[in-house]
Amino acid sequence: MTRCTLCERGEAFFLRPYSGESLCRKCFCQSIEMKVQAIISKYEMLKPDDSVAVAVSGGKDSVSLLHIMTKIEERFPKAALSATIVDEGINGYRDEAMKIAIENCDKLGVPYATVSFRDIFGHTLDEIVQKTKDAKLTPCSYCGVLRRRALNIGAKSVGADKIATAHNLDDETQTSLLNVIRGDPLRILRARPVSAPVHLDFVRRVKPLCEVPEREVALYAYTKRIAFQSAPCPYASRALRNDVRNMLNRLEEKHPGTKFTIFRSVQRIRNALDESRLSVELKSCDVCGEPTAGKVCQTCLILEDLRVA
Amino acid sequence: MTRCTLCERGEAFFLRPYSGESLCRKCFCQSIEMKVQAIISKYEMLKPDDSVAVAVSGGKDSVSLLHIMTKIEERFPKAALSATIVDEGINGYRDEAMKIAIENCDKLGVPYATVSFRDIFGHTLDEIVQKTKDAKLTPCSYCGVLRRRALNIGAKSVGADKIATAHNLDDETQTSLLNVIRGDPLRILRARPVSAPVHLDFVRRVKPLCEVPEREVALYAYTKRIAFQSAPCPYASRALRNDVRNMLNRLEEKHPGTKFTIFRSVQRIRNALDESRLSVELKSCDVCGEPTAGKVCQTCLILEDLRVA
Repeated sequence: MTRCTLCERGEAFFLRPYSGESLCRKCFCQSIEMKVQAIISKYEMLKPDDSVAVAVSGGKDSVSLLHIMTKIEERFPKAALSATIVDEGINGYRDEAMKIAIENCDKLGVPYATVSFRDIFGHTLDEIVQKTKDAKLTPCSYCGVLRRRALNIGAKSVGADKIATAHNLDDETQTSLLNVIRGDPLRILRARPVSAPVHLDFVRRVKPLCEVPEREVALYAYTKRIAFQSAPCPYASRALRNDVRNMLNRLEEKHPGTKFTIFRSVQRIRNALDESRLSVELKSCDVCGEPTAGKVCQTCLILEDLRVA
Repeated sequence: MTRCTLCERGEAFFLRPYSGESLCRKCFCQSIEMKVQAIISKYEMLKPDDSVAVAVSGGKDSVSLLHIMTKIEERFPKAALSATIVDEGINGYRDEAMKIAIENCDKLGVPYATVSFRDIFGHTLDEIVQKTKDAKLTPCSYCGVLRRRALNIGAKSVGADKIATAHNLDDETQTSLLNVIRGDPLRILRARPVSAPVHLDFVRRVKPLCEVPEREVALYAYTKRIAFQSAPCPYASRALRNDVRNMLNRLEEKHPGTKFTIFRSVQRIRNALDESRLSVELKSCDVCGEPTAGKVCQTCLILEDLRVA
């Protein structure tokens, strides 16, 4: 039996390749919780009296984040924690995930707000996919823009100061490489661990899992017996992202720590670009008044398309 | 028989996946030569009266570049072309490659200058590898620094205005990703298609093959029956680069054009960084007077190490 490197008592069940540590279940879970706390401090994600809305989809990452944030919040009596659950309207998929999200909130005693595409935009994602099936854009393109807006509206409705999303280290490195591979590298400026205060109506986003590898989030969820939805979204077409994911996993296996190095490299490029004149400031959309980089926001452009379609 | 897309007469022997063209041998070779000419114009690499020293190792890329540059130079009567051949001193490898390099120069009527590590630095690479075998650095780390210096000295000795190196599209994208994977992403600022005029004694480098895929350079060399050395350097330890190469080749096969997109992404990041205060200006080394970013250049630091070793 291999003993845990940290407590030297428990039986090791996980070898962390990039650090060499062998960890027992208890120390592993604690290490994840401490890591999240350290990430929050390092990037100054939250203030002690912030009201934080966790974006909970029901997947392993967001539900794990909710559990970890609940533990952390106990130590900050002036902070408030809630969940924002977005109902995109995907029959046979989202309803199941929402049920799981709500059960987790109830179990943890975390208040939650749900916002639905139908209520806010007048259409479910299923309807949008139907209406736009001849368009070039994928369902994910529509959903990404609208979900972002829905989250902002949901978080504002409960007076949240910050939205915490569950993007993990793998998500972040994949997205950065995808931006480069797709020819839109300056998008890395938008995907920071803490979003910039670009607009009064834009609730700032923080990513407390951004330096936690995906497999460790999954292992945390399994070890803690957290209920989550594991089915993938029926609309997800992640061909290129899957290629990049496999590529990064192969690299990480051969050269442990590679994902962290890539993450830090992207941070260095961001910091270097910050010294130039590239930081974005958002304006208010001419149509709906919500934050946007252009004159009319992407959400209103999509809604206008749907009106015509 | 598939006809060539361009001349509509010759038999196609190469399908260019990212453009959809089917090309005959003649049109393929012309397309490469025109591409190189276009790259030189696009990045303003050369002036009509430049004296250009091609860095020729004897491998497929540098020998092909020499052939193409010879053709291009014919149209610029005020320009001058020569080759610089660096003898690192690698027994059983470099001697063979130099023979091939010189044969190509003679065949093309291009004057050449050879510079050797032994003459300039007092040691062959074989001796340096022997002396530094307990050091952490790989042979490539020493060779890279010293070859760069040797090229500069060789090119200055023939009064060259520019050094043309044969880095192809694959080299460039691999190097950019390697910089990110190794945590040194701002190195992309140094590896431009045209190096910046950072120092009077630094002969500017240009990369006329930087947008030509490696397999097309190889196909050009084979089709033109150009003699080149195909054996790899015995010291080359390219583990991580090979992983990145395979990764990029897989991506390119599934998504033709990916390498070009990555190349352009890196250019966009460079341009964005140029607007900040990050451009480097070189000073003169306190010891040898050659261009350097620090007080004492890497070459002198290596030579000092060798003195002590």
